Amino acid sequence: MNIYGDSKSGNCYKLQLACANLGIEYTWIELNILNKETQSEEFLSKNPNGKIPIIELSSAEVLTESNAILNYLADNSTLLPTDPLNRAKVLQWQFFEQYSHEPYVAVARFIEKYLGLPEERLLEYKQKQVGGYKALDIMEQHLSTNLFFVNDTYSIADISLYAYTHVANEGGFDLSSYPNIKHWLTRIGQQPGYRPMHN
Amino acid sequence: MNIYGDSKSGNCYKLQLACANLGIEYTWIELNILNKETQSEEFLSKNPNGKIPIIELSSAEVLTESNAILNYLADNSTLLPTDPLNRAKVLQWQFFEQYSHEPYVAVARFIEKYLGLPEERLLEYKQKQVGGYKALDIMEQHLSTNLFFVNDTYSIADISLYAYTHVANEGGFDLSSYPNIKHWLTRIGQQPGYRPMHN
Repeated sequence: MNIYGDSKSGNCYKLQLACANLGIEYTWIELNILNKETQSEEFLSKNPNGKIPIIELSSAEVLTESNAILNYLADNSTLLPTDPLNRAKVLQWQFFEQYSHEPYVAVARFIEKYLGLPEERLLEYKQKQVGGYKALDIMEQHLSTNLFFVNDTYSIADISLYAYTHVANEGGFDLSSYPNIKHWLTRIGQQPGYRPMHN
Repeated sequence: MNIYGDSKSGNCYKLQLACANLGIEYTWIELNILNKETQSEEFLSKNPNGKIPIIELSSAEVLTESNAILNYLADNSTLLPTDPLNRAKVLQWQFFEQYSHEPYVAVARFIEKYLGLPEERLLEYKQKQVGGYKALDIMEQHLSTNLFFVNDTYSIADISLYAYTHVANEGGFDLSSYPNIKHWLTRIGQQPGYRPMHN
């Protein structure tokens, strides 16, 4: 299996972390988002949406969208429950991540860390803080009575939310008043096969 | 099962359409987004993110996020493939919908149809057109060689993308140069148990 990704991207790191937890081997193909390497004709023939990560199977079939790929990789593993309700709860948190968390926490990080917080994006950056803290508040509340996001068991829902939360400080987010999130981050770092993000 | 939704919302219509296709009975509880009925203390106790649709099971358990709920409702039905790769492809298109389609096509419709295109949101509205047409281009390309989004079979991936695409004109999108999308919309309207959106 080939994974096309950018090591700076939390969405791509999700797959590296899941593969490390599950002992899945793969070939990593590094693409630089900032150099627009995901907009080349060759890459667009694999994913017309021009986004990473994607995986390419030995059959040459391509799967896109980080959270969809996680569900594929984790099928029949401890990282994905088998009963329909808990499986849907994993998806619930993954859709929360892509709609209510990533567009704020990840985009703020991108503007600050990779674009250097340019003047013309300062207003947008400040707006991202509001949405990001709202997402963090919801996570903190859930984690006040739960060890992990679904069924008190480490799953791909945790991986999806961990990816950008554990580097939220790089987008200007201060987690010091989020003790439950901080304990959860620590628990994830203690899971078998954990690997850090190299960015 | 209770469904809390707003009849104007495509995200909520997804559940009405899937239940109609599958013959699932439910109690509909109408909440008006514009009147901030999803921000009441009572509703926030069910979904702290203040978003609809949600479902409430007889066990009192709540599930949020339209596409996660679709996966729960369609489990073990013809609307959701059972093999891992096609199941992940359904998710791929659902995550595409929530990240690259809904934030443009649905938000443009909301600004135009429900807010009356106020001057202060005109720039945002125009930006939404760019992202929305990009999503429609990707759909058109896929449908040029596929009858439905996954495995040439009607699934919840189609329902997710149908919800806001079939009313995209209400957000200023002109589908006249998207023949494959228009044929696909017609095919969905011919599925057993189809019901229109009442908005």
